Amino acid sequence: MTTANGYSCLSFLTDYGRADGFVAICHGQMAKRAPTARVIDITHDIGPGDVRRGAAVLAETVPELPPAVHVAVVDPGVGTRRRSIAVAAGGHVLVGPDNGVLMWAADALGGAEACHELTEPGLWRHPVSATFHGRDIYAPVGASVAAGTPLSEVGPELADPVRLPAPRREVSGTAAGGEVRAVDRFGNCQLSVFASDLSRTVPGGTPERVEVRAHGNRWTVPVADTFASVAHRQPLLLTDSAGYLALAQNGGDAAHGFGLRAGDPVDLVPVSEIPANPV
Amino acid sequence: MTTANGYSCLSFLTDYGRADGFVAICHGQMAKRAPTARVIDITHDIGPGDVRRGAAVLAETVPELPPAVHVAVVDPGVGTRRRSIAVAAGGHVLVGPDNGVLMWAADALGGAEACHELTEPGLWRHPVSATFHGRDIYAPVGASVAAGTPLSEVGPELADPVRLPAPRREVSGTAAGGEVRAVDRFGNCQLSVFASDLSRTVPGGTPERVEVRAHGNRWTVPVADTFASVAHRQPLLLTDSAGYLALAQNGGDAAHGFGLRAGDPVDLVPVSEIPANPV
Amino acid sequence: MTTANGYSCLSFLTDYGRADGFVAICHGQMAKRAPTARVIDITHDIGPGDVRRGAAVLAETVPELPPAVHVAVVDPGVGTRRRSIAVAAGGHVLVGPDNGVLMWAADALGGAEACHELTEPGLWRHPVSATFHGRDIYAPVGASVAAGTPLSEVGPELADPVRLPAPRREVSGTAAGGEVRAVDRFGNCQLSVFASDLSRTVPGGTPERVEVRAHGNRWTVPVADTFASVAHRQPLLLTDSAGYLALAQNGGDAAHGFGLRAGDPVDLVPVSEIPANPV
Repeated sequence: MTTANGYSCLSFLTDYGRADGFVAICHGQMAKRAPTARVIDITHDIGPGDVRRGAAVLAETVPELPPAVHVAVVDPGVGTRRRSIAVAAGGHVLVGPDNGVLMWAADALGGAEACHELTEPGLWRHPVSATFHGRDIYAPVGASVAAGTPLSEVGPELADPVRLPAPRREVSGTAAGGEVRAVDRFGNCQLSVFASDLSRTVPGGTPERVEVRAHGNRWTVPVADTFASVAHRQPLLLTDSAGYLALAQNGGDAAHGFGLRAGDPVDLVPVSEIPANPV
Repeated sequence: MTTANGYSCLSFLTDYGRADGFVAICHGQMAKRAPTARVIDITHDIGPGDVRRGAAVLAETVPELPPAVHVAVVDPGVGTRRRSIAVAAGGHVLVGPDNGVLMWAADALGGAEACHELTEPGLWRHPVSATFHGRDIYAPVGASVAAGTPLSEVGPELADPVRLPAPRREVSGTAAGGEVRAVDRFGNCQLSVFASDLSRTVPGGTPERVEVRAHGNRWTVPVADTFASVAHRQPLLLTDSAGYLALAQNGGDAAHGFGLRAGDPVDLVPVSEIPANPV
Repeated sequence: MTTANGYSCLSFLTDYGRADGFVAICHGQMAKRAPTARVIDITHDIGPGDVRRGAAVLAETVPELPPAVHVAVVDPGVGTRRRSIAVAAGGHVLVGPDNGVLMWAADALGGAEACHELTEPGLWRHPVSATFHGRDIYAPVGASVAAGTPLSEVGPELADPVRLPAPRREVSGTAAGGEVRAVDRFGNCQLSVFASDLSRTVPGGTPERVEVRAHGNRWTVPVADTFASVAHRQPLLLTDSAGYLALAQNGGDAAHGFGLRAGDPVDLVPVSEIPANPV
């Protein structure tokens, strides 16, 4: 895919935090090469080196942005021989290290259409450091693509981008198993399963209540549309704004209440499927 | 009020935090509908669901911005039947849930001139979720108004927007009583009383020293113009940049020193009005 | 230096934090006076009143930005008789209090060419408060300069801007002594010495290993190009992206590992220069 006309929007996601000048330095590279593009910061508070978290936040966010070049740098392998890539998907372009951080977002945009390795040093900032490729490679290349550089000029096509293992998602006729995909600021625990997965566990469609099993504990929780469907501080299972099932608490912090963190396995069993519930 | 020409500036305040993609997703909605508008983030670090804090920060900030559409989402009632509104005030427009978060800002802009309920789904993002109206309703409507949609098209006028109770402010001939309106990053405790309130407590105008009474404790504090009027780490009472009296500490954290938090009642008694002061 | 054509970019660094409306209020002043300028936030998370940290982050960041007006406000002396200045350097302009926060950045841009005291109240927001000169003086003047006001109009030239003491940097024939200049989000400890300083301590150029001496402790650490040159969690000494030597840990937090904080003295002794190493 060529992008001869470029993009008027860039987005930017990193694990750099905002206490240092790193993010602004990358903004500077973008401003030099794409001076009229709007830059939307997705977040810079990904945990240091947490590629899965970066991939998850990026994948949830980019479908809601206008067509853009998305620069995402969670890069614990900076300075090693890991490759750098640009991926075209659904009219957007993703730029970052080839460690999987981009590919869930490509899927969310409809699937990768082309993947190029960043090998053209003419687009980079020089000298290229061993520790800060956001500044030296990703921001400059992303901004150049926004300014109209076609993907064919960033480097040759590459057929095998690195992919992260998908989150656990095991649906049987009687249970839906997944993991905590993300915990948001409010403590809502997004699971790696969908309402449609849960529907498949009972004959009549979505159950009214499920047993949540995690860390050897069991809780019975109603399935509801929104927080206010249950009393203050009560837990519920809802479909979140990204389409995933999420454990939540009305006016409370479900992650704290259930003792859950990102990556923890969680199983959902419709209450009609289990003999009794002493809770 | 119609806003046929729109606004070149949007502001945005939430309790979403910046660690997730929520803020950027709303920026995306804004960029799609008002691609040339500048977006100023006020803060996204309002405590989860803290409508009063959101209202206070919004009210202090918007009078300092150019004419703009201000989108403010602190919305613990998302998914309930609470209404959504747009308020015209002083050449600005405020957009958010009808829970009081907007109305102190409307007052600060000179008072609400018109209030409309957001009922026109043609301006929203679809499907509308039960949990993320910042993305689905407020950012899209705010950006549409910035792009020129008149308020008459967002929905019908509404006469009774929800108002938060005003902070405590009790001024007698001998004391001024209020509460901590906000604690800022430096620990300065903004009070809900003005220097003019304090002047009314003594015949000769502003007293030189006041006794601060809070939580059963009493401290004598000088009234001064700025931090450096007192020695390092010493407390003072000053008029802050928003016009409120504030308890501060030169180079220190007054909230910590006095043990105060937002909402705590505080009484100020001019020292000339009290018999003696053993401190 | 006049700046008759102005600048299309402003940057902004403070110790205001992002939980209050202070930063947005300053953005508002900028938007009113320079409505088309792009504003890049460097950081607002400088520790309250930490002028040295502000100066260090500003100095590292501004050389990477396009020609711009940089407004930097870390201002524990607000409301005292400290002066306010604008400094021209390398085609950029720096605006802020005259307490040293700007001058390392001026040096990084090639050295101050002209320094003006901000004395022209016609460029300020009124009334001028005693506590918030970011809003009242620095953001308005910075934005006015971006919009084309020449430096000669902000106030008269000033010959003696305040300078912070330089960080410790003592290089002998056998050791390089410095201090921790900054600790970044990842725990990397940037030192106030350069690889070239270290080269001067040994005849054959950069040593392969150094003994790090700090707080009475000694560690032997390899000198390497990038994190991945050493095993996971192992320490190393590298040249960071700003050109300074830095103590780092591959995938870990060197500040925590070495027990170091900004300002701590650190000495580096090439291992070949010391008799033996029992570690």
